[in-house]
Amino acid sequence: MKVRAAVVGATGYTGGEALRYLLGHPYVEVVAAVARSTAGRAVSDVVRGLTGRTDLRLVPYDPDGLGAQADVALSCLPHGDSQEVVDDLRSVGMTVLDLSADHRLGSLALHNRIYGEHRRPERLAEAVYGSPELFGDQLRDASLIAVPGCYPTSANLALWPLLAEDLIEPDDLIVDAKSGVSGAGRTPSPGAHFPEAGEGATAYKVLVHRHGPEIERALGDSTGRPARVLFTPHLIPMSRGILCTAYARLKRGVAPSSVREAFEVAYGSSPFVHLLPEGRTPRTQDVRGTNNAHVQSFVREDDGRVVVICAIDNLGKGAAGQAVQCMNLAMDLGERSGLDMPALVP
Amino acid sequence: MKVRAAVVGATGYTGGEALRYLLGHPYVEVVAAVARSTAGRAVSDVVRGLTGRTDLRLVPYDPDGLGAQADVALSCLPHGDSQEVVDDLRSVGMTVLDLSADHRLGSLALHNRIYGEHRRPERLAEAVYGSPELFGDQLRDASLIAVPGCYPTSANLALWPLLAEDLIEPDDLIVDAKSGVSGAGRTPSPGAHFPEAGEGATAYKVLVHRHGPEIERALGDSTGRPARVLFTPHLIPMSRGILCTAYARLKRGVAPSSVREAFEVAYGSSPFVHLLPEGRTPRTQDVRGTNNAHVQSFVREDDGRVVVICAIDNLGKGAAGQAVQCMNLAMDLGERSGLDMPALVP
Amino acid sequence: MKVRAAVVGATGYTGGEALRYLLGHPYVEVVAAVARSTAGRAVSDVVRGLTGRTDLRLVPYDPDGLGAQADVALSCLPHGDSQEVVDDLRSVGMTVLDLSADHRLGSLALHNRIYGEHRRPERLAEAVYGSPELFGDQLRDASLIAVPGCYPTSANLALWPLLAEDLIEPDDLIVDAKSGVSGAGRTPSPGAHFPEAGEGATAYKVLVHRHGPEIERALGDSTGRPARVLFTPHLIPMSRGILCTAYARLKRGVAPSSVREAFEVAYGSSPFVHLLPEGRTPRTQDVRGTNNAHVQSFVREDDGRVVVICAIDNLGKGAAGQAVQCMNLAMDLGERSGLDMPALVP
Amino acid sequence: MKVRAAVVGATGYTGGEALRYLLGHPYVEVVAAVARSTAGRAVSDVVRGLTGRTDLRLVPYDPDGLGAQADVALSCLPHGDSQEVVDDLRSVGMTVLDLSADHRLGSLALHNRIYGEHRRPERLAEAVYGSPELFGDQLRDASLIAVPGCYPTSANLALWPLLAEDLIEPDDLIVDAKSGVSGAGRTPSPGAHFPEAGEGATAYKVLVHRHGPEIERALGDSTGRPARVLFTPHLIPMSRGILCTAYARLKRGVAPSSVREAFEVAYGSSPFVHLLPEGRTPRTQDVRGTNNAHVQSFVREDDGRVVVICAIDNLGKGAAGQAVQCMNLAMDLGERSGLDMPALVP
Repeated sequence: MKVRAAVVGATGYTGGEALRYLLGHPYVEVVAAVARSTAGRAVSDVVRGLTGRTDLRLVPYDPDGLGAQADVALSCLPHGDSQEVVDDLRSVGMTVLDLSADHRLGSLALHNRIYGEHRRPERLAEAVYGSPELFGDQLRDASLIAVPGCYPTSANLALWPLLAEDLIEPDDLIVDAKSGVSGAGRTPSPGAHFPEAGEGATAYKVLVHRHGPEIERALGDSTGRPARVLFTPHLIPMSRGILCTAYARLKRGVAPSSVREAFEVAYGSSPFVHLLPEGRTPRTQDVRGTNNAHVQSFVREDDGRVVVICAIDNLGKGAAGQAVQCMNLAMDLGERSGLDMPALVP
Repeated sequence: MKVRAAVVGATGYTGGEALRYLLGHPYVEVVAAVARSTAGRAVSDVVRGLTGRTDLRLVPYDPDGLGAQADVALSCLPHGDSQEVVDDLRSVGMTVLDLSADHRLGSLALHNRIYGEHRRPERLAEAVYGSPELFGDQLRDASLIAVPGCYPTSANLALWPLLAEDLIEPDDLIVDAKSGVSGAGRTPSPGAHFPEAGEGATAYKVLVHRHGPEIERALGDSTGRPARVLFTPHLIPMSRGILCTAYARLKRGVAPSSVREAFEVAYGSSPFVHLLPEGRTPRTQDVRGTNNAHVQSFVREDDGRVVVICAIDNLGKGAAGQAVQCMNLAMDLGERSGLDMPALVP
Repeated sequence: MKVRAAVVGATGYTGGEALRYLLGHPYVEVVAAVARSTAGRAVSDVVRGLTGRTDLRLVPYDPDGLGAQADVALSCLPHGDSQEVVDDLRSVGMTVLDLSADHRLGSLALHNRIYGEHRRPERLAEAVYGSPELFGDQLRDASLIAVPGCYPTSANLALWPLLAEDLIEPDDLIVDAKSGVSGAGRTPSPGAHFPEAGEGATAYKVLVHRHGPEIERALGDSTGRPARVLFTPHLIPMSRGILCTAYARLKRGVAPSSVREAFEVAYGSSPFVHLLPEGRTPRTQDVRGTNNAHVQSFVREDDGRVVVICAIDNLGKGAAGQAVQCMNLAMDLGERSGLDMPALVP
Repeated sequence: MKVRAAVVGATGYTGGEALRYLLGHPYVEVVAAVARSTAGRAVSDVVRGLTGRTDLRLVPYDPDGLGAQADVALSCLPHGDSQEVVDDLRSVGMTVLDLSADHRLGSLALHNRIYGEHRRPERLAEAVYGSPELFGDQLRDASLIAVPGCYPTSANLALWPLLAEDLIEPDDLIVDAKSGVSGAGRTPSPGAHFPEAGEGATAYKVLVHRHGPEIERALGDSTGRPARVLFTPHLIPMSRGILCTAYARLKRGVAPSSVREAFEVAYGSSPFVHLLPEGRTPRTQDVRGTNNAHVQSFVREDDGRVVVICAIDNLGKGAAGQAVQCMNLAMDLGERSGLDMPALVP
């Protein structure tokens, strides 16, 4: 019997991507796609990539109805909007994957400082951080999973194995990330306006982007080593993808070869995170449309400077793909199920 | 002594481009840049390409002040908004170049049918259509000039010489135009959102775009031959440029060679419209940032099918560059002045 | 038991795309990926989107070995190179799908005039044109299928239903097509160099592109009405996709409503060609990564001018997707098998 | 009387850009455009942005002829090819600006290690590094100027003021640079092929790119402090521009406010380098087509981490614009001459 899934906020980019993955999932049936302003329309009229692939119509939000109909919900609402919805859906007994930032930070104090007061703090405490590589064990049987943002996912995958093995100084980490514009969501804005975002690059929210603390917390919690991260997000003229370039310093006495070894250990049996053969450098193109991450590391031997590069699809491993992976683990559907596709290159 | 110019609506794309041209114009001094919501800020904080090139600050709209300060105004407001402003500025004695659609259609009946009721119909009657190639003589000493839109400019340049020489059937013209996204203006919208407009192409307003009648009227008025045009605008993933592919049929008995000859006669001495050498095809890249148009023609000899391709910069020859060219003619400043720059390739 | 497939020319764009589809096909096992200069390397080191999805290594071309190993071959070589290879593979008994132009034109005289002398004319005579919509019946049990190019596929889908129903004049058809750059293949060239092809649009091979006659022949053969097509290909700054805008004229006396009806009849039960709801216009984005085609039609009622717009993925329905669809029909694998995925938007 | 200039290697991207600047220079006459394989053709048929702006024809390389005809040469050849040419042109008495890497590294030992043996080492010793901000005094009356590459220019402008004022640790500098694809030159290559470079990002030559040592040497020589730089170049999908994000650490005891002050001192009177108002972040768009650099700095006060962002046009301040600026200084033509234009936005 298939798991019955609902997508709430189905018409944004992460919602549409969640539908794309779920409609091809062998053990899932999509029973509801929830949207506010477009309720009543055909899903494929709004999420146009689904044309010819589903007859679903968008429905308004009704938690009781969803609870009766579905086993699991992917909440793809903006942060803030997710808090009540997640609480509702948990109250009717559903397993919930929240793709917003609302349940990611674990600490209530930290959440309130960064995002403002949380309105359902008990749910925050209940949530597991949805990174299968960092917290896989906790995800089995989890019923509320806070799926990480795209920037933290790429940064965590780049740095976690080195921190976990205690190879690098934890207090001097730099994450220089280059993001495609879809990371800003589907709502038009000046920064995402084609003539502004095309043929140009810029940094934004330097030193103050809210994903910095999320990265620090995820790395710290998963390794037991408090991490300090300088995070610089950039917007570059592509629709999808994040290329994360992370800089660290080897601890004194650590052999340069242990860097690659740490990644081999960490990701050798991972279905989605691929340490590339030496000599190949990650490209966002090569993970487009997938839940894959491509990782490569470099060490400057004379002074122990380390560079790790990680490429993901911001809507895949950075959002909906990872949510499905977490769902697979939490509901025991097989980690690869519905996610085993090649990338779209070119 | 320099002509004193004001730009009204200085922070939109056509307004910013007008400033770019005017600040380098040898016989013009820019005395005012008018904006609504950003009045008080430095021009270069909003029109960022001007950083380091001007100390002007944006000022609120004040027609009397402008009349006292400036000789000529470029009105770069959206259609509809331009009607009162143009009337105001004419009333205080300024020469006005209107870059909106408000004074382009000549016929009040046509205007009212397509854009809704004109609120200053007497100004509509006063306006000259700002196409130096089609109506150059009327532009000398004109005091109100309606500068054509980007689509009509490219289509008119492609078809006018053939119609004027009576070489083609006037009632079966097709204009298939591909536009960069800046043609939609600076205000964000779903269609111009980078993740939607990037890596993709679409047509829009098929058969109903309002530039269709503008093309028909401009061609008809300039040649005395009523033209029927099927106009299909497309949006393609670039910021600037229009590539117009026009299709016509030779009239019976017309020699194929007369097509190229007509363009040689029409544009042989034009400072901005260049008939390319045979074998070269127009590219929007090659006119980027300029007031140039590149034209090439092809004839299928056995049945007289004609293809004419014209490339312009939608913000240059399709808007601000052409406005400056018209101003140069109207105010006798030398047609090339301020416009004699190479294109930015790549 | 699965069909065993080989891809010859596996590292070009159509070859890589063929592998992408075939690796996810439920009834196919990919047993060989053939390449010349990269033989011996891992497929996923060259076709990087397959990283983590296959352990195949590239092998050199060996027709006897392929014949022993595989039932069907997709030949993804450039035209010219395909002739001997197709002959070889047919000689060892394989079903062959040729994605090059080498067996598309049916008529030897036409082929020789356009592409130069064919070296295996008997195979040209044997080939069926691989358009399931136009020639579906002939594809069942076909053993040599010439899969159409991307331009002809989009043009044929736009015009064939109207010609078949005798609604339009066959001798005055215009096809204005806008192509992504991957259509030029994987070999770098000046026209596909990013700084040249980015932020710009151009037409090329106006009146002389070799796909013009292919369109004419496919339309003529499938409808029995000799078609005359003026074909203008354009290059626009995107990697994938073709947007085809076709212009025709209704025959005297034909009701405008019969246009949409013809498309409803033609495509109402098609698994991949979708006539969009009225009011929606095809976008190449909405078919990206799929074998789908989106079609919409418009009629100018007063004079019977017809515009049909068709969007496909040039590597999907325009190449490898269509090849798989043809293979499915020829080998009775279920037309949708391996092709039933949503598009990647954004 | 105008200075007579020749451009050698006129048809590459830096050569074409040099012509673009020089043709608008008030005190320069372009007397020769030299090219190898295209000699004899009109310049504007190859450097198509110049269509209608020059009647020059490309001429083959003839050093004696150039010496007789011209006062100054811009050599825009690839590194390696420049060595003999620069020697020739110096021998006939010309002032030479070399835009290649052939004379940048000062130290012969360093050059030979990185680029292979220099064939005209005495010219290497003669050359001044063409950075007006770092070495302005040495440029006056220089007769051989090695114009820096695009990456070093952006990195140097970001870090030099802080090193010169001894505010940052010199041995732990990180330069994470994002480049447009035109930096790879005009010759097509797999990495610059549109379908590969579009819609994607990648790093390349991590730890081994040859501009790393050039940055270290320029910073060291200009400040007297040996700098150690970790340089990571990235390719992002735009044609023009470099966005450089540099990371440093304040020396113990340095006040955070001294960072901005250092930039104010360094660039307060610079005609082309603009420290942006606080709150504004550099965008490559805002310097497109110009010799400008936009700079902004950020300090994390608790631990003294510094981020400096610098945006330039790789073909402008990163190549041809800077060459003209150097020429202006060396030949006393007024530093701004020919370079005082706004950026092309959008």
